[in-house]
Amino acid sequence: MTKFAELTEDLALQLKAIVGEDDIQYGEGVNEDYSHDEMPIYGAKMPQAVVFPENTEEVAAIMKLCYDNDIPVTVRGAGTGLVGGSTPLAGGVVLCTMNMNKILEYDMRNLNVRIQPGVRLCDLAADALEHDLLYPPDPGEKTGSVGGNVSTNAGGMRAVKYGTTRDYVMAMTVVLPTGEILEVGRAVNKTSSGYSLLHMIIGSEGTLAVITELTMKLVPNPQANTSFILPFENIDAAIRTVPEIKLAGLGPQSIEFMERDIVDASAVYLGKSVFPTEIDGREAGAYILVTLDGNDPEEIFQRAEKLVEVADANGAYDVLVVDHAAEKEAVWAARSAFLTVIEADSDLLDEMDVVVPVDSIADFLHYIYGVGEELGVRIRSFGHAGDGNLHIYCAGNDIPVDEFLAKSTKVMEAAYAKCAELRGQVSGEHGIGHAKKKYLHESVGDTAINLMAGIKKVFDPKGLLNPGKICTDL
Amino acid sequence: MTKFAELTEDLALQLKAIVGEDDIQYGEGVNEDYSHDEMPIYGAKMPQAVVFPENTEEVAAIMKLCYDNDIPVTVRGAGTGLVGGSTPLAGGVVLCTMNMNKILEYDMRNLNVRIQPGVRLCDLAADALEHDLLYPPDPGEKTGSVGGNVSTNAGGMRAVKYGTTRDYVMAMTVVLPTGEILEVGRAVNKTSSGYSLLHMIIGSEGTLAVITELTMKLVPNPQANTSFILPFENIDAAIRTVPEIKLAGLGPQSIEFMERDIVDASAVYLGKSVFPTEIDGREAGAYILVTLDGNDPEEIFQRAEKLVEVADANGAYDVLVVDHAAEKEAVWAARSAFLTVIEADSDLLDEMDVVVPVDSIADFLHYIYGVGEELGVRIRSFGHAGDGNLHIYCAGNDIPVDEFLAKSTKVMEAAYAKCAELRGQVSGEHGIGHAKKKYLHESVGDTAINLMAGIKKVFDPKGLLNPGKICTDL
Repeated sequence: MTKFAELTEDLALQLKAIVGEDDIQYGEGVNEDYSHDEMPIYGAKMPQAVVFPENTEEVAAIMKLCYDNDIPVTVRGAGTGLVGGSTPLAGGVVLCTMNMNKILEYDMRNLNVRIQPGVRLCDLAADALEHDLLYPPDPGEKTGSVGGNVSTNAGGMRAVKYGTTRDYVMAMTVVLPTGEILEVGRAVNKTSSGYSLLHMIIGSEGTLAVITELTMKLVPNPQANTSFILPFENIDAAIRTVPEIKLAGLGPQSIEFMERDIVDASAVYLGKSVFPTEIDGREAGAYILVTLDGNDPEEIFQRAEKLVEVADANGAYDVLVVDHAAEKEAVWAARSAFLTVIEADSDLLDEMDVVVPVDSIADFLHYIYGVGEELGVRIRSFGHAGDGNLHIYCAGNDIPVDEFLAKSTKVMEAAYAKCAELRGQVSGEHGIGHAKKKYLHESVGDTAINLMAGIKKVFDPKGLLNPGKICTDL
Repeated sequence: MTKFAELTEDLALQLKAIVGEDDIQYGEGVNEDYSHDEMPIYGAKMPQAVVFPENTEEVAAIMKLCYDNDIPVTVRGAGTGLVGGSTPLAGGVVLCTMNMNKILEYDMRNLNVRIQPGVRLCDLAADALEHDLLYPPDPGEKTGSVGGNVSTNAGGMRAVKYGTTRDYVMAMTVVLPTGEILEVGRAVNKTSSGYSLLHMIIGSEGTLAVITELTMKLVPNPQANTSFILPFENIDAAIRTVPEIKLAGLGPQSIEFMERDIVDASAVYLGKSVFPTEIDGREAGAYILVTLDGNDPEEIFQRAEKLVEVADANGAYDVLVVDHAAEKEAVWAARSAFLTVIEADSDLLDEMDVVVPVDSIADFLHYIYGVGEELGVRIRSFGHAGDGNLHIYCAGNDIPVDEFLAKSTKVMEAAYAKCAELRGQVSGEHGIGHAKKKYLHESVGDTAINLMAGIKKVFDPKGLLNPGKICTDL
């Protein structure tokens, strides 16, 4: 691999000439924020410079300059990642896309929108709704950039019906490490035209190319939706119901699960209880939250009747309709607060977002709670029951970081091993970054990692782009 | 690139020892069928041997033997390809997967099925229905293998609602050119776990690895469907209506278009007229055939009412409901006969299956008819209006092959250039093989082709697997 060079004063001036003096931080002027993502616990490293280009041409000029001078470059969106993916492990330049935040053009005849990668998920979603269109991917972190979502193939709540971010990327403009500009994919709905460079770059966490423009597919906005809370005795009963809901052809937009402890904590945090805890004298131990969408409230009502049948047959204590706007808001506010609640409660957090087959969710949770108990680590979890994607947190208080990490790492090791045994995946939507490299390697094996490293070399022969991530070491 | 070696008598005996004597054709015993796919007009080449392995281990042994001895291997499914993808350009061994035709296991809790790659599309579809599940991809050629469909990312009629084959591959077992066995993907619904080797192999036309097992996603079978014939004055009016149907949120399962000439030819061929040609004294020049599916006939009926509104507002002459089983069968028999009708009518055929943005379909067709007229080549077409995937044929009679190809090639060149201008793709579902390599190269450019060739080398350093296809030359 190429030996990385230092960014000299002269090179910094050349970068400044490319982006303009307001759009660069250099040396002492670099904000500490750019040394890590939302999980500094996995390590931080100050870059020598941060640049904020505004378009493809500026990105191409930056990449060419860095390529010619062996300067490592780490791409960063909103910095909301959770696996250290945008941490500039080798220093060098951080290329932040957040000034590339324009929604460029809607194509209402072909149902897509062309955007820059720094558009935030919440902004794209809101803007699409103004056109009565839905941008279906709905990851929990709404302030993340769409470019970041594409780079991690973020999924979110609605994946059970609509698929993940991957399914909505029609085309993109990228800049290769050499500075060359390349368009991959096209804004059409089918293709069998050579290897899919588009799908190779999706989910590659900024290690193969810099995304500078995206054409995203949109769908007509469903005109109605209703959510339903189903309380159960315990998580086993709740999870057992999930495949039945799917098999009944109810086409749920999302199926989320939550256990009693996090619901209680969320009620305390928000000062408001929205999930029923006692139903006809029976204590609810777990819940699923099902959302049905469609164009016709009457038709949703008919599916809801079938949902009630399925719920009854599977031991649900009740089916609570969440229909009015205020109710919906309260329920989804509670659901969205889960991570905040966990964070508010804990000084230290370590996390994973494994995916397991839907019918193995409860098994996996029991196992991991057991491990946590054994090691004295508090485990909190919630997640996407409809697609088996679990967000699991090790939480620590009043304990030194090193000691916490030593313990949480043991939990992680056990959990990833169990996940492999259940034929699951290391990450559903957060990605690998550098924090989960070891677990990816154990999960997919040497041959797959070597193929990935080979592909990395084809795109980035000098290894300058986001070094030390996924399948490369520093 | 490695110089290919000849398959010696001794190596043939070793192959025979791997697959058994009933499952090899060698030397004089090779059937001519294995020298080409359904388009021998693009060239044929006899392999030295054809082997019919039954499982992953046999494939691994074959590949290792060939790798160690520099023997080229071309994978073949049912041989229904249209771009010479399974033509063994370098001779050597044809590895036919059609003895690997077992449906192995349904997972009813996680909605998927594990199969061998030689299972035919029609057999998988029928078997899934027995489980009240739908395998959504529905390419026109029902006797093709699912492995072949995955290798070309075949799309078919229902892609407008359900996506293409790519969207239904959860995991696969492959054998690499070296003989190493690798599992890629997992039977779960979300992943962000390193570069997607799964998506790299999908659509790679047997050039990167040999697929030996597939886990395919299934969906609950919609309990009802109804088709609707909408006659229009001409193709422009028909195509203009397509985006309106989508924007109205009608969620069509398919939207096919057909012009009057092919409908008439099909009526003559089948001896039965199912599409109305005159409506209230007006001659229909083109049609779209819309199918709506769902679980509730009443709900489909409500969407149908909206379809009638959209049809009226866009100049449709009528909306004919195709509801009864016999009617449906007749209409879809007519639709399925289009290619047969074209074949029956013509001694020589050349074909393309470009994809253009939906709202450019009519423009593209007018252009290509003009080119055909100018060059004296008969053009026939039909296709998937919902996703812009057009099947276009140059037909020739009473003309020497060379002369025909000289003319049809001119049509192709003009058509692919127009497609590029409209920002379309060279192929929607047939793939590139060797027949469309030049057009792919012109469409995506040197940089993309070089990246593909680099990826090919990572998987297949000796260049032994299906040589001369997509991005490599012999």
